[in-house]
Amino acid sequence: MSDGKDSLDLSGLGAAIPNSNELSAEDKANLVASIKNTLEGLASRHMDVLEGLDPKVRKRVEKLREIQGQHDELEAKFFEERAALEAKYQKLYEPLYSKRYEIVNGVIEVEAESAGETPAEQKSGEKGVPAFWLNAMKNHEILAEEIQERDEEALKYLKDIKWYRISEPKGFKLEFHFDTNPFFKNSVLTKTYHMIDEDEPILEKAIGTDIEWYAGKCLTQKVLKKKPRKGSKNTKPITKTEDCDSFFNFFSPPQVPDDEEEIDEDTAEQLQNQMEQDYDIGSTIRDKIIPHAVSWFTGEAAQDDDFEGLIDGDEDDYEEDEDEDDEDEESEDDHDTKKTKGAAGGDGQQGERPAECKQQ
Amino acid sequence: MSDGKDSLDLSGLGAAIPNSNELSAEDKANLVASIKNTLEGLASRHMDVLEGLDPKVRKRVEKLREIQGQHDELEAKFFEERAALEAKYQKLYEPLYSKRYEIVNGVIEVEAESAGETPAEQKSGEKGVPAFWLNAMKNHEILAEEIQERDEEALKYLKDIKWYRISEPKGFKLEFHFDTNPFFKNSVLTKTYHMIDEDEPILEKAIGTDIEWYAGKCLTQKVLKKKPRKGSKNTKPITKTEDCDSFFNFFSPPQVPDDEEEIDEDTAEQLQNQMEQDYDIGSTIRDKIIPHAVSWFTGEAAQDDDFEGLIDGDEDDYEEDEDEDDEDEESEDDHDTKKTKGAAGGDGQQGERPAECKQQ
Repeated sequence: MSDGKDSLDLSGLGAAIPNSNELSAEDKANLVASIKNTLEGLASRHMDVLEGLDPKVRKRVEKLREIQGQHDELEAKFFEERAALEAKYQKLYEPLYSKRYEIVNGVIEVEAESAGETPAEQKSGEKGVPAFWLNAMKNHEILAEEIQERDEEALKYLKDIKWYRISEPKGFKLEFHFDTNPFFKNSVLTKTYHMIDEDEPILEKAIGTDIEWYAGKCLTQKVLKKKPRKGSKNTKPITKTEDCDSFFNFFSPPQVPDDEEEIDEDTAEQLQNQMEQDYDIGSTIRDKIIPHAVSWFTGEAAQDDDFEGLIDGDEDDYEEDEDEDDEDEESEDDHDTKKTKGAAGGDGQQGERPAECKQQ
Repeated sequence: MSDGKDSLDLSGLGAAIPNSNELSAEDKANLVASIKNTLEGLASRHMDVLEGLDPKVRKRVEKLREIQGQHDELEAKFFEERAALEAKYQKLYEPLYSKRYEIVNGVIEVEAESAGETPAEQKSGEKGVPAFWLNAMKNHEILAEEIQERDEEALKYLKDIKWYRISEPKGFKLEFHFDTNPFFKNSVLTKTYHMIDEDEPILEKAIGTDIEWYAGKCLTQKVLKKKPRKGSKNTKPITKTEDCDSFFNFFSPPQVPDDEEEIDEDTAEQLQNQMEQDYDIGSTIRDKIIPHAVSWFTGEAAQDDDFEGLIDGDEDDYEEDEDEDDEDEESEDDHDTKKTKGAAGGDGQQGERPAECKQQ
């Protein structure tokens, strides 16, 4: 069993020893040894547990570790079998998802109600189920909060949302398939989550597609026009571009710095919260919207969700933020936003999570 | 498909109509109809989605609902098979857990190291692995926070922790098996979680065993002695009993009121946070401690956990609360607390979760 001692880097320790030039060689050696011991103590504190035990007890614990090893081997097989089971069912769902895709996008038509109806009549109306994915998502309260009115026109071009697991690194990928649209060039936007843990959602990082917005069509930025001050020589309005709320920010997830040590605690905490929120959105789309899109579209799933109990923290963590950034002097250049409201957009959110209240 | 209209109770509506006596019968009828419409609109907003659709689109959605039904049937089978798989592995783990139990509690002895050792010598030392479960739990940061120094002596009597799923209602039960001990009479303390959702941890309620404390041994209450004021006629110290932090509060979980409507939003939020924390503790014991108790005892599991990424929100939600309630005038009657520290008790917790920081 490795106790990790070999991996401790003690280079540079000399610099930390005060007045090291004035110490004898022996003192220096002792001091270095003492610091080394302290550091090793910190690094190997876990293994100290075993070393501090009575030899007979330690022998029992060694046997227990063997048993734990057997358990962990079995458990690895369990994870494998469970993944295979999930894959089997994903395959069974596949033809149903395809059928759903074809109906939603008007690739196939459901049987005519009366025999007298002609194909021409069928074609006269709307194709498929307009704004299907937009309305499905808007009926989930977490997603409703992300979707801004100006996003809606673009989200109507969503033809399908799919997901699949990835390995190496482990995780999953969401694919948003879009019809040709006036907002961006991409036909597929993806979001990939790399996970660390096998059994729990331990997120390592999230990666989104760079959206190729057409000129003036970017939904994640707003152009603000500022009137020049009265009496100013400059009569042209000053324009300013500003990041703004948009569902499409989902494709620019928070970035984890390479070396976690370099950020302070507050920043780390803020980042963790942002990543949690980002993961909530991704896993909601994967676990709720994709498998039950029709029930979300009709609102039936939202009704069921209303009966959910008190623990479902994910859905109550967000604070309503109704701040408008149109200030007095600034008018928003809100291009091409139709005020279309489809299916009711959920109940909205009010819960603001306070600092955790300790029960003890 | 039912649209829910029949279930609307419109009795008492008349009372809400101002000056209803002055209105003509026709006006009254119109007013009632209008209010009725509004209420029906609220109640059936989900079904309005279907009714508001072009008949052809509605037909497509009806077909989609059929497909969703097929999906949901498959999904129910998936949940069944997954539960069976889990049960199969729980059965495979069982003999390993039994072996662990026997070694931990000295029911069996592992083979002697040298042939010369006699059974008598083996029996001379400590039995099994002392304080095994206490130290395993103390190495997990969530549980370390719950376990107070005065709890430790009692938790040394823990012989085993087990869990199993329950159905009707769905959920799981934790069993804490204790050796005969000077603190309480029960040999098994249980904690049961009733869940609502099939796939997600939606907690309905949690139920704990009533602990039958021996006189003066209750760990969830402290006896405070208050010195009488100087010059007071009364010279006897005043004693006061006060609830206090203890791991054993885990067996008195927060109670959900029968009718959710009766509590205000703040109380509901506080309750939700308490239930989340309670559920975190329960699921940590079920998912981490029980399957990997040996690795937690040695500290290896805690080391692995240090590598966990940014999303594992559960473990960073609690606020360190070091308030001591021994005030100037009060001295704590802290019976029988030995200051025994076993394996290092985790890194402690510092993160306080701020109100969610919206990324948008």
